[in-house]
Amino acid sequence: MAMVLPKGYRFAGVHCGVKADPARRDVSLATSDGPAAAAAVFTTNRVAAAPVQVSRGRVPGDAVRGVVLSSGNANACTGDQGRRDAEAMTARLADRLGCAPAQVLVCSTGVIGRPLPIEKILTGIDDAAATLGAGAEDFERATLGVMTTDTRPKSAGRTVVLPEGTVRVVGFCKGAAMIGPNMATMLAVVMTDAAVPAARLDAMLRAAVDRSFHCVSVEGHTSTNDTVILLANGAAGTGPLADDAPVAAAVAEVCMELAQAIARDGEGLTHFITIDVAGAPSDADARRIAKAIADSPLVKTAICGADPNWGRIVSAAGYAGVPFAEEDLSLVVNGLKLYDRGAPTPFDKAAASASLRDSFDTHIELQFTLGAGACRFWTCDLTHDYVSINADYTT
Amino acid sequence: MAMVLPKGYRFAGVHCGVKADPARRDVSLATSDGPAAAAAVFTTNRVAAAPVQVSRGRVPGDAVRGVVLSSGNANACTGDQGRRDAEAMTARLADRLGCAPAQVLVCSTGVIGRPLPIEKILTGIDDAAATLGAGAEDFERATLGVMTTDTRPKSAGRTVVLPEGTVRVVGFCKGAAMIGPNMATMLAVVMTDAAVPAARLDAMLRAAVDRSFHCVSVEGHTSTNDTVILLANGAAGTGPLADDAPVAAAVAEVCMELAQAIARDGEGLTHFITIDVAGAPSDADARRIAKAIADSPLVKTAICGADPNWGRIVSAAGYAGVPFAEEDLSLVVNGLKLYDRGAPTPFDKAAASASLRDSFDTHIELQFTLGAGACRFWTCDLTHDYVSINADYTT
Repeated sequence: MAMVLPKGYRFAGVHCGVKADPARRDVSLATSDGPAAAAAVFTTNRVAAAPVQVSRGRVPGDAVRGVVLSSGNANACTGDQGRRDAEAMTARLADRLGCAPAQVLVCSTGVIGRPLPIEKILTGIDDAAATLGAGAEDFERATLGVMTTDTRPKSAGRTVVLPEGTVRVVGFCKGAAMIGPNMATMLAVVMTDAAVPAARLDAMLRAAVDRSFHCVSVEGHTSTNDTVILLANGAAGTGPLADDAPVAAAVAEVCMELAQAIARDGEGLTHFITIDVAGAPSDADARRIAKAIADSPLVKTAICGADPNWGRIVSAAGYAGVPFAEEDLSLVVNGLKLYDRGAPTPFDKAAASASLRDSFDTHIELQFTLGAGACRFWTCDLTHDYVSINADYTT
Repeated sequence: MAMVLPKGYRFAGVHCGVKADPARRDVSLATSDGPAAAAAVFTTNRVAAAPVQVSRGRVPGDAVRGVVLSSGNANACTGDQGRRDAEAMTARLADRLGCAPAQVLVCSTGVIGRPLPIEKILTGIDDAAATLGAGAEDFERATLGVMTTDTRPKSAGRTVVLPEGTVRVVGFCKGAAMIGPNMATMLAVVMTDAAVPAARLDAMLRAAVDRSFHCVSVEGHTSTNDTVILLANGAAGTGPLADDAPVAAAVAEVCMELAQAIARDGEGLTHFITIDVAGAPSDADARRIAKAIADSPLVKTAICGADPNWGRIVSAAGYAGVPFAEEDLSLVVNGLKLYDRGAPTPFDKAAASASLRDSFDTHIELQFTLGAGACRFWTCDLTHDYVSINADYTT
């Protein structure tokens, strides 16, 4: 993890006891030494977790000092007690940082419907605050403290050289299931030391999320806790930027790398799948088609079995709600054309099956003749292990 | 199969060679001795199979004489050749019945994207037409000839006593996967010997489908071949009915029994799941919520594992697109209340898990406080066997 971290941020991750295994961290902090502009995108699920309800009222903001994240318990469907617990988490970190609770954001992830072990978590926040640091190992501890069924921590970073000086963007996230791209998904914190006003930061984040976290799915189940936070504290010292487009591009790249990392770590997966839709009436239509394919258990199991059953892909496109005629569509899988403008194409089935069997990366390309709409979308296959992992999660 | 069959219909089912196993029938016929009023509901998939394209232009109709159905090959995504083959199937049966091709409807089901072995099928139609009969064993052969991964044939019937005399309604269907309720699903033929004009028959079928085939899902993938056909030939001899509501009710009951039979035979299932949503703003909203729950792999795997992880059910309701507050919702699973107006309820987790483990039938009830909208929806769980069956279907 040789990540160049942005200036003026500190990190921590500790074990407090939400997770049974003492080797697994379950409370993370990401703090800014000075007030940071902050934007966030939250789940659109009507059942929003308590931390989402609390954080939602605090962004966009101009003076955010930190984010507290806990894993192992989602603090969702927990009623008034849940809201009080989420507020207590922000109050405790605020106390340690010497700021107001409204300057702290909060995220939780894990099982739904159980009260938080709040005393353990508050003690964990104290412990974490006492170990805050700006080193790579501190950042890594924070990335570990948000994991649930993730098999590895997920982070990404970019360095941007501007006329005013150099700024940095880094982010980390968690997510391996209950991933359905309906506005935001999962938990992610992205930080830059560039100076960007909150309103502009909000637009920058929404544009980045549209091309990243909105374009990833594991099984299409939109979670109650999805949160993506973007902080900008100006600690690089460049002052206001004449043109922040390079920063926006770096934010988008970090978000795309993190979103892909989620699909690459999808529960039980044996294939990472990239779906490219081009020539659709609009970008939104292209995304609708890509999502229908990504969420089809029949497509996902076929790829798990290295079965070039392309009819499942074409038929999933057909029910996505986008008008088209069969003659408008061609399909290429792992470079082999299987369907050409409404008619099947003779192809080497053994070669197609071998390419699916031998490669972790799978590429599905749909080419329409209807317009300039395009989307790149990421997902994974559906395997026996996904069923095993999810058939016995809380018991 | 002690089904009372309607008068004036004959049936057949033979093996012609679409399926490799000579013991498995793959061509079925259902014919009416005289002209029958006919209505049908078809898939809304933009990629509609050739038989759907051909049949669509022939209903509602007043003089339909028969339906030819083939299994093992869907004749979907097969271009002009596919349309010519579907038309040839109807022309061959019309020739045998002594009617016009436009008086015959056609359905196919099976793998997508391969040309039909049309010569075998035409020979099969000849063989089947030569064995048409009105007995229970003839009807059963027809129900066998449409099966693909179905583990058993599916049929249902009702007898209706009216002031004008007794009429009968029977139906058969196939379906075990690629079941997603987006207008019609799967193949079904429902027949009555009541006299019902075509326009009324069409309304009767749409109302029945709304409460049956639109309320069933295996994995939410809407097929290219979905067709539900309703025939009424008046052979009971009652003449026009003063009030056909009892016939409409019988048609709806038969459709509901067939739809449930599909979910009860869902690929690889270990649980049949009934979802009741009540108190929603509208019936359509209730169905939207039920479908989101039914299609969630996280809900389906939890039930497979007898895991009372009710947060997955509540969170799926939350992303269905229907506005509600958590306080509007209570949840009961197998008679145990797990969530009461927005707050978790203490429950005996061992008992909840045991009730899921020990019972094939699973009952999920969501009670909202928003209106009078209700829906009963059927689905099944997601298991290792579903993955095994679908990971290796065409290769």
